[in-house]
Amino acid sequence: MKFSKFGQQFTETTGISQLMDDLGDALKSPEPVNMLGGGNPARIDAVNEIFLTTYQSLGKDAFDSGALDSMVNYSNPQGDSSFIAALVDFFNRHYDWNLTSDNIALTNGSQNAFFYLFNLFGGAFASETADNNGAQESINKSILLPLAPEYIGYSDVQIDGKHFVAIKPHIEEVTHEGEAGFYKYSVDFEALRDLADLKEGRIGAICCSRPTNPTGNVLTDEEMATLADIAKQYDVPLIIDNAYGAPFPNIIYPDVNLKWDSNTILCFSLSKIGLPGVRTGIIVARPEVISAVSAMNAVVNLAPTRFGAAIAKPLVEDDTLKQLCDETIQPFYAKKAKRAVALLKEAMGETPMRIHKPEGAIFLWLWFKDLPISTTELYERLKAKNTLIVPSEHFFPGLDIEDYPHAHECIRMSIAADEKTLVNGIKAIGEVVRELYAQG
Amino acid sequence: MKFSKFGQQFTETTGISQLMDDLGDALKSPEPVNMLGGGNPARIDAVNEIFLTTYQSLGKDAFDSGALDSMVNYSNPQGDSSFIAALVDFFNRHYDWNLTSDNIALTNGSQNAFFYLFNLFGGAFASETADNNGAQESINKSILLPLAPEYIGYSDVQIDGKHFVAIKPHIEEVTHEGEAGFYKYSVDFEALRDLADLKEGRIGAICCSRPTNPTGNVLTDEEMATLADIAKQYDVPLIIDNAYGAPFPNIIYPDVNLKWDSNTILCFSLSKIGLPGVRTGIIVARPEVISAVSAMNAVVNLAPTRFGAAIAKPLVEDDTLKQLCDETIQPFYAKKAKRAVALLKEAMGETPMRIHKPEGAIFLWLWFKDLPISTTELYERLKAKNTLIVPSEHFFPGLDIEDYPHAHECIRMSIAADEKTLVNGIKAIGEVVRELYAQG
Repeated sequence: MKFSKFGQQFTETTGISQLMDDLGDALKSPEPVNMLGGGNPARIDAVNEIFLTTYQSLGKDAFDSGALDSMVNYSNPQGDSSFIAALVDFFNRHYDWNLTSDNIALTNGSQNAFFYLFNLFGGAFASETADNNGAQESINKSILLPLAPEYIGYSDVQIDGKHFVAIKPHIEEVTHEGEAGFYKYSVDFEALRDLADLKEGRIGAICCSRPTNPTGNVLTDEEMATLADIAKQYDVPLIIDNAYGAPFPNIIYPDVNLKWDSNTILCFSLSKIGLPGVRTGIIVARPEVISAVSAMNAVVNLAPTRFGAAIAKPLVEDDTLKQLCDETIQPFYAKKAKRAVALLKEAMGETPMRIHKPEGAIFLWLWFKDLPISTTELYERLKAKNTLIVPSEHFFPGLDIEDYPHAHECIRMSIAADEKTLVNGIKAIGEVVRELYAQG
Repeated sequence: MKFSKFGQQFTETTGISQLMDDLGDALKSPEPVNMLGGGNPARIDAVNEIFLTTYQSLGKDAFDSGALDSMVNYSNPQGDSSFIAALVDFFNRHYDWNLTSDNIALTNGSQNAFFYLFNLFGGAFASETADNNGAQESINKSILLPLAPEYIGYSDVQIDGKHFVAIKPHIEEVTHEGEAGFYKYSVDFEALRDLADLKEGRIGAICCSRPTNPTGNVLTDEEMATLADIAKQYDVPLIIDNAYGAPFPNIIYPDVNLKWDSNTILCFSLSKIGLPGVRTGIIVARPEVISAVSAMNAVVNLAPTRFGAAIAKPLVEDDTLKQLCDETIQPFYAKKAKRAVALLKEAMGETPMRIHKPEGAIFLWLWFKDLPISTTELYERLKAKNTLIVPSEHFFPGLDIEDYPHAHECIRMSIAADEKTLVNGIKAIGEVVRELYAQG
């Protein structure tokens, strides 16, 4: 039984499969594991209570129940039309985007959306020129990630190898809530504008997550405006992964704007409001992109799953979801971030550890400058102490990091864990890292 | 904004997207539509009642509820582990397959499973030989469909063009329940064994649906055994699409066996038990295939959706699902098939219409021999009379049908519709077809 070349890609261990396997193993482990590695959102009882109440009310009205409808009928390939209608109303109520139902498609989670989009805008393109025999030439285009590090899950989604180009960040020491020990990334626009791939037409789209997974960085409004201008200049879309942004889950702290226009592709998710199991992603884009995504849904999945749409629809319609995000989810993670920062500062003492300024998402991104070992080795040492984090090397798709020490010196740690896990996990990190620096 | 070559495939209208669009439009139409075109299962109140009761009971136990767990946590990429455990027990209870949890993966519906499998076993393979410069050569392999017609949804799932080879069927006039007017397809093994692609190593897998969508044919145990032997001989897997077969939904009438061994990949679905909206497919295969599928799940979807697993698990554990299929779902469709056959015989009168022997699935496959127009044109005429069927031309992936009249003379009609729709739809088909033959 032989696998195709495409299939063989999947028999190799990928960053994301390693992450998911460790996460799965940790959940099955008989010993307690300090799980700071996964992307699962926190368990917030007040939030879960609303999901459960909604679940119950959907199942009340017997045969006309929304629950039953979502189970016993396919949606069309674009996704559950009543949830799409609710989202159109919701976004038009809160933003001046003037959307119609032709601007929204649903996917089986945000990862599924990026599988579609990175293959729609990356890989082989038909060239406008022909070779000597008159055959149409092919040109390979990449997805431009303007600010590495970026999300681990992007790396492997392209069907014919990896087509990413990333730009190293500017790093600036900053204060956070009046304290030192922090830094912030910003886009190196000089390097970006100077990129041969961009100038020579080998970029198919520009993409960033905002807030960024893994760093918690939030690109400024000015950075976003510049990226939007560059995207328009080169006639490529600007894809924004808004999985942690406003208006849901709204785990974002700086006072910034979320913009959309017909050259922007905005991706939302229900995962970080607390519904990762329902696998529901939302794409807001111009109609031709929505048509292509719908056609991909038909071929890859026949139609998207409907249950997440059924649960979220009433919460979107009456703004319960927005309120939940503003009043419960955002403050919850803000408090977690503050607590984790305090624990880290205590555990790390006088080490050169720096924390990326926590501006959103559910992670902290720690930089152990001049650590004697790579963070991939650190990951193994922490795993031996039942503590899981994610080393930085996986977060640089599109960059050759061999001679880039920074890419080997960071870790992503989740702040979604409970107090005990945070305390014990950070204690373990502190012990191992301080010992390493001491041995120097 | 330009799309990649891969993306451009999806901007063309595909057979399946046309089908899904017409289905979607029909549901939105202000006039009543005789919907005999879709693949939605029938609404069976006794079945829906069990789904609703299960839904309600999953939501009862507050924070420890199965409902909440399925919403607020990811599964691992292989799929919900407790449902997989329930399936392992279920299959081992009813068959002698000796499965473990390494033999089962879940997908977001059966279409999603075939997207994975047809790209895992079709397309470009690394060759064992090298060219003059020492570079490894590439060989394109196809999926062999031993008996066309086959399922419309297969056609477009391959990421780099279409790689299917199909064999024209033997057609034999048969009786059905003592009556004439029927025919049955069988595999042309002489043509199959003689196929150059097979003999020369350009087949990556053999695949059939059983019962077959669109025809309702059930390949005999002897045919299946011969296919299994040929698959083993050429070291390729035999993929069986069991979406309509035993033990669920068990919409299959001949007394045949379902076999599995490590060279077989069996695909099941929750759709035709009545849960198409939950998008849950089940793959039973050797561990290396399950690993590859799990890795594809991670990259394409992060993890499969969990709600279908949550609903189905208790029904699989106590055999309620099996009982429901045997005592309610199978008799329901058997009765529908009988009724549709009677209506067709009445509506078609003395025309040369023949019906494929109804052996399972939720469709009848009608053959209008020597019809003066193609059934694609017939489809348009029937659509003008608010009656939707699916013309046969889409069901022959892997065959050049230009000079094959049979492929232009058949239609697939669903029998899942309610009585009124069946009566009116078949009446419309009868009027249009009889007039065509009369003019012919």
